[in-house]
Amino acid sequence: MNQGKKIAIIGCGAGGGTAAQFVRKTDRKAEITIFEKGEYPQYSKCGLPYVISGTIADFNNLIEFSEDWFKKANIDLHLETTVEKIDAKKKIIIAKKGNNVVEKSYDTLIIATGAKPFIPPIENVDVDGVFVVRTIDDVKNISSFIKKDGNATIVGAGLIGLEMTDNLRKKGMKITVVEALPMILANNLDEDMVKIVGERIPDDVKILTNHRVEKVESTNGKISKIVIKSQEKNEEITIDSDLLIIAAGTKPDIDLAKSIGCKIGETGGVVVNKRCETSVQNVYAIGDCTEFVEYITAKPALIGLGSIVVRQGISSGINAAGGDYELHKGILNTSTSEFFGVEIAAVGPTTKGIEDIFSVVTGHFNGSSLPDYYPDGKPISVKILVDKYTGLIISAQAVGENAAQRINMFACAILGQLDVETLRKLETAYAPPIAPTLDVVTLVCDIVSKKLSRNR
Amino acid sequence: MNQGKKIAIIGCGAGGGTAAQFVRKTDRKAEITIFEKGEYPQYSKCGLPYVISGTIADFNNLIEFSEDWFKKANIDLHLETTVEKIDAKKKIIIAKKGNNVVEKSYDTLIIATGAKPFIPPIENVDVDGVFVVRTIDDVKNISSFIKKDGNATIVGAGLIGLEMTDNLRKKGMKITVVEALPMILANNLDEDMVKIVGERIPDDVKILTNHRVEKVESTNGKISKIVIKSQEKNEEITIDSDLLIIAAGTKPDIDLAKSIGCKIGETGGVVVNKRCETSVQNVYAIGDCTEFVEYITAKPALIGLGSIVVRQGISSGINAAGGDYELHKGILNTSTSEFFGVEIAAVGPTTKGIEDIFSVVTGHFNGSSLPDYYPDGKPISVKILVDKYTGLIISAQAVGENAAQRINMFACAILGQLDVETLRKLETAYAPPIAPTLDVVTLVCDIVSKKLSRNR
Repeated sequence: MNQGKKIAIIGCGAGGGTAAQFVRKTDRKAEITIFEKGEYPQYSKCGLPYVISGTIADFNNLIEFSEDWFKKANIDLHLETTVEKIDAKKKIIIAKKGNNVVEKSYDTLIIATGAKPFIPPIENVDVDGVFVVRTIDDVKNISSFIKKDGNATIVGAGLIGLEMTDNLRKKGMKITVVEALPMILANNLDEDMVKIVGERIPDDVKILTNHRVEKVESTNGKISKIVIKSQEKNEEITIDSDLLIIAAGTKPDIDLAKSIGCKIGETGGVVVNKRCETSVQNVYAIGDCTEFVEYITAKPALIGLGSIVVRQGISSGINAAGGDYELHKGILNTSTSEFFGVEIAAVGPTTKGIEDIFSVVTGHFNGSSLPDYYPDGKPISVKILVDKYTGLIISAQAVGENAAQRINMFACAILGQLDVETLRKLETAYAPPIAPTLDVVTLVCDIVSKKLSRNR
Repeated sequence: MNQGKKIAIIGCGAGGGTAAQFVRKTDRKAEITIFEKGEYPQYSKCGLPYVISGTIADFNNLIEFSEDWFKKANIDLHLETTVEKIDAKKKIIIAKKGNNVVEKSYDTLIIATGAKPFIPPIENVDVDGVFVVRTIDDVKNISSFIKKDGNATIVGAGLIGLEMTDNLRKKGMKITVVEALPMILANNLDEDMVKIVGERIPDDVKILTNHRVEKVESTNGKISKIVIKSQEKNEEITIDSDLLIIAAGTKPDIDLAKSIGCKIGETGGVVVNKRCETSVQNVYAIGDCTEFVEYITAKPALIGLGSIVVRQGISSGINAAGGDYELHKGILNTSTSEFFGVEIAAVGPTTKGIEDIFSVVTGHFNGSSLPDYYPDGKPISVKILVDKYTGLIISAQAVGENAAQRINMFACAILGQLDVETLRKLETAYAPPIAPTLDVVTLVCDIVSKKLSRNR
């Protein structure tokens, strides 16, 4: 009997699920097994905040590939099954579903264990009404604590914290966001760009930067108040809170990978290369549990974006099945989000991430999405970071209309090693209802080009 | 006395006006004179159709730089002044304003005479109610012929023809579009992409491809009916028409340039290089009267897009003032428009324009602007033409949501010489309300990449 290659995948998130699909596309005979500790097949974690507000009508809509889909693709999906041990010598996975032990041998293993939420040191954090936003169950539980005119506190003013703020606000809650750093979105944008976002935050949303949640106060085991501490003034504030969401980042879930000797990097993730291979033969790792390098700086970086996870899923799936799919030499971290009606996007490191590596010249342009004479043009601000010596684009940030598609262009420019001199002369598409004759993406390059020529 | 360089500009459209501004930015002392035969200073011709529908409230809104602006910039603008002769030996321009003769000597000349509408052979075309769409006065005159439930006929189903159709329809007119070619938008899109646009054209708009307007019938010197001839069946149709708009393309206005010996190219335009220089020393030409080469094919091509005209204005203005601004080696023809709520965009030649030069592999992907699970995603279709041997992007076309910004990315990819293998792995920005994990711009590259690897 012609037996297929045995490929085991741990985790059925966007990474593991995608990997399974691409194993199947590459090798019709492969024996594919997925172990997933949760009760749902592949669903979109990034979509969770939008179920809160009802923008996405139902949790079930988030499920991108159903159990039935996996069955039809002849992929053996074990839900609610936790891998307890990997015997790397014998190439056997030992997992548990309830009290039943599942054993499965493999030829090739793909680890897609994801990340665990990081919980800052907060006193009494285990009471009812304190949540993270990682799973469908988290959001189901959050839902029962939502009430119109109630108070919610969000720990962390990153993308997820602000997405949750926007969506809880749509349900009529009053939100306080508590951020330990001196500014919101510190991992995504420079201070001048954050300022533009800040102007769009509604007055009823309270943002406390340089603050930490110290303690949760509870009544009958249920959250009632939050004690917040200012880091500058050493003052304490106590506010009512019916709900506390912790969105303070994640830590890669590396226990299984570590147990079989996969190299762990300085960021705490499983080190992988552009084929998603770990340091252990026939073992791939993908997604939020992994560390790769930044394209521009070659510095180690944790994977934290769904877009990259899916690309790693494609690569690892094809490679594990005997194909060949190399990702680019590093990650660009092209990202986007939207809250309070304002779109933000970025590619590459912020100024903070590269000051020690490059001599940077920056340009910042505040423009309009449409020609001045056409009604309803919307603001769009773009900032670029450019290498002083080569004129090459290092990174870009945008806030406003079609920020994401404009940033995709800069992602393309980074891969294509285009300099500002080339880009400022790029013919962009123009029509009165669509875009001005000179799009902000070229005007911002023009600014830097002039700065560079003055320096010469 | 320290006298400035004398720079004369013929034509104050987007090209001439922009050139004047960039002369001034480059040289504060230059003596700048502009001759404009029309009565308005620099205004947006591309905005004219939107005044028809009232989307742009007033003709005056189209004026981008007022007479006062030119005065403040110390630019001597002569409106309603027609250049009759250029004495290239003595470097003198002889112009006429009414009965007054204006003479002006120059050191450097920028010719921005634009184009004249092409009028197909139509019998009795000189009656009231027949118009072209080139000037504010044209559109003012058209306005008095607009009536709700009236009939309008448009000759030419290119961008301007369809923009006029959409805007006249918004005023309640019933439109028939007559196109001599077998399809609409033949200069902009391939047939498969045109088909997608076709599906979005409202039922009450009648499109007659393979037809020509033969004759205008009139009553008391005013249009009443149109006789249309089918080119396939040799049949004649007569329809009521209160208005006939001719949007059948243009011919470069080269008389003055030709009179001083500027080389005229095979397309009929004044030949210019990437510095906008003509074959005559110290004479630049820009805009719709010029011919440059296509970036991808190096074939001569007429300039016909406002975006390019403005870039030539910048280049010629800076160069004429003694600076140095080279455009790219050829034009990409990045274009966009919107009608009936559908956005189209393209960069580079259509399949027809390159069949004789490249071995092309095409990819076509119909996707959505958002992930499947997020509501209100809109269709977006992208087609790319790729060189079979190098995998490099030759050109791209898009119909649907954010088509223009997506096409700008491909314009960037063409300049950066990115191949489909690189682009299909591009990290695009992802967030549920903004874009899917794999944007159509990468998925269409994936299709071509697979085709290419099958051929190897």
